[in-house]
Amino acid sequence: MAGETGSKEQAETAARGDDFRKLREGEVAVELPPQFDAALYFIGRIRTPWQSREQCPKNPRESEAICMVELDPRWADGLKGLETATHVLLLYWMDRSRRDLVLQVPRHYGERRGTFALRSPARPNPIAVSVARLIRIEGHVLDVIGLDCLDDTPLLDIKPYFASTDSVPDAVVGWHARRGG
Amino acid sequence: MAGETGSKEQAETAARGDDFRKLREGEVAVELPPQFDAALYFIGRIRTPWQSREQCPKNPRESEAICMVELDPRWADGLKGLETATHVLLLYWMDRSRRDLVLQVPRHYGERRGTFALRSPARPNPIAVSVARLIRIEGHVLDVIGLDCLDDTPLLDIKPYFASTDSVPDAVVGWHARRGG
Repeated sequence: MAGETGSKEQAETAARGDDFRKLREGEVAVELPPQFDAALYFIGRIRTPWQSREQCPKNPRESEAICMVELDPRWADGLKGLETATHVLLLYWMDRSRRDLVLQVPRHYGERRGTFALRSPARPNPIAVSVARLIRIEGHVLDVIGLDCLDDTPLLDIKPYFASTDSVPDAVVGWHARRGG
Repeated sequence: MAGETGSKEQAETAARGDDFRKLREGEVAVELPPQFDAALYFIGRIRTPWQSREQCPKNPRESEAICMVELDPRWADGLKGLETATHVLLLYWMDRSRRDLVLQVPRHYGERRGTFALRSPARPNPIAVSVARLIRIEGHVLDVIGLDCLDDTPLLDIKPYFASTDSVPDAVVGWHARRGG
């Protein structure tokens, strides 16, 4: 099951000389399924001040920068009523990572863990979920605070954040807590 | 921009006689983009006690039923370390709804609001995000509490829930709060 796949995508990546898809020592990839099961529309773009991974804040609460969520005007009517929400869940697509890793060694932790124990962009479906504070909506553009993604990231969804179901203040991720937060 | 599309998918739906895609009075659909932008793998299935929409709890905190998240064994190594988390974010695919609605009239609210002000399954990318309590992991199966989805729902992702970035206890959705919670 383990071992690097020889997919067309990876061959193309290698040809482009990208190295963000290289396996680090101890990382394990699996063979990807032979076909996809569903398809997505990019419904807009997220504009942030960060042009490279190195510039991005390490986590979404580290920056107070205002980011702009530019929804495709096609969907603008879908924002009606959202202005009454203080926070939103934003789903976006992080396609600049491998999708076949099951064990990863994130650089800033240096320990090997499973993909599903991490919030790493490298995962079978690279969908990020971020909570952002909604500052204002003007037409089809939202100003928000609390993102950490690259400029021009493709947007997948906007949802209202309900404290009653989305907030669990006493949740713990043991491996992370033991590091001292 | 508004108006019902004449897509192949809708024609097929009409032919099957499904009526959950019918527009309610006041609902508005837009023309879907001509093509998709990205593709997803179903990485497992969620097993719940609910076989129809009518049986599903109205929201995820309404039921204490234990649900099973059955990850495809291909990805099982990705769970390493997740057993230390008390809660997970589960992303799953709700493909039994229209994707072209921008204004909706949910039955249990009876008022028209934008798709992005609602958690309705009808949205351009029908990805649900739910917080669930992690009870145990055995092999490639997770037992969790706190889901409200149909049995056999396709799984897209499992992420650890970090209170530090995912929990906002004082978030408010105004239109919902004014209804009295």
